[in-house]
Amino acid sequence: MNFFEAAQQRYSHKERFLPDSVPESALNQIATAGLAAPTGNNTQCVKLVILRERDEVQKLADIVGTEGLKTAPSAIAVLTDSEGHRAPYNFEMEDYSTAATQMLLAAVALGYVSVWLDSPFFSDETQKAARTALGASDRYHLRVVLPIGLPDGEGSRRDKLSFEERVSYGVMQG
Amino acid sequence: MNFFEAAQQRYSHKERFLPDSVPESALNQIATAGLAAPTGNNTQCVKLVILRERDEVQKLADIVGTEGLKTAPSAIAVLTDSEGHRAPYNFEMEDYSTAATQMLLAAVALGYVSVWLDSPFFSDETQKAARTALGASDRYHLRVVLPIGLPDGEGSRRDKLSFEERVSYGVMQG
Repeated sequence: MNFFEAAQQRYSHKERFLPDSVPESALNQIATAGLAAPTGNNTQCVKLVILRERDEVQKLADIVGTEGLKTAPSAIAVLTDSEGHRAPYNFEMEDYSTAATQMLLAAVALGYVSVWLDSPFFSDETQKAARTALGASDRYHLRVVLPIGLPDGEGSRRDKLSFEERVSYGVMQG
Repeated sequence: MNFFEAAQQRYSHKERFLPDSVPESALNQIATAGLAAPTGNNTQCVKLVILRERDEVQKLADIVGTEGLKTAPSAIAVLTDSEGHRAPYNFEMEDYSTAATQMLLAAVALGYVSVWLDSPFFSDETQKAARTALGASDRYHLRVVLPIGLPDGEGSRRDKLSFEERVSYGVMQG
């Protein structure tokens, strides 16, 4: 799919997924696109855990029961390595965001939908439980989980500000 | 251009740019792709300033003289609005990162190169000077500037870790 089509078609699918499985080759292609994302100082502190089977996704759904995790046939968990940096900078936030962005677009380019699930893992309790489910040690931080699959019906989309409200030329307006 | 081609071709162009100007329509298309990026809680806290002319880019080059700013015919500055949030969350880091990622890919999809320039604006002094040059008040934070144009020669690329070093299936390895 053309890049601009993918960017325009992408949305946050907060509803249910169909049970149809996603081929491992597609999940690998999505992960590869994520790993090609920009990374601060080339530290590449992002690690991915691909959950190919429904029962693997269910382990996370048992911790935080969003519609996506309860129904998606597969998912990719995005973690950052807190030791993977060079002082004085820490680009964990940027690095996981760039990787997740490229994976969301890749999923759309292959005909799937996804959603950026981060807030369910903000609490210490869910963060620790999810890390344990993923076999990740304390040096890793689970940043976002991307359920991936086909949508069970059309997902809702939220209103967006206009181009003019967010873009200026030369100097900022307002 | 196909999404996956754009993701694989993108790299950080740290060298000089050719003087050939970038049409306003292309800059608008790149900005539009950035605004279509995921945004936490749909707050859309990212604002863009498009620098269409060399003399506008030069204002930033006068503050921080990277090769990109000294030579690029155009650029897009990415700012976040510190008041554009809903408590308790602040997604400024994620939001500017997702927008910048999609703009870098969009530039590549249109045949241009770019680079993520953030560290030159980390100091209070350069941050303030650049905000002033962009006409941005204190409520905005200049996060990254993306010089955009054609490369003056082939840019260097850094080595990347392998897929196997960064991806696990089901549970993390290592």
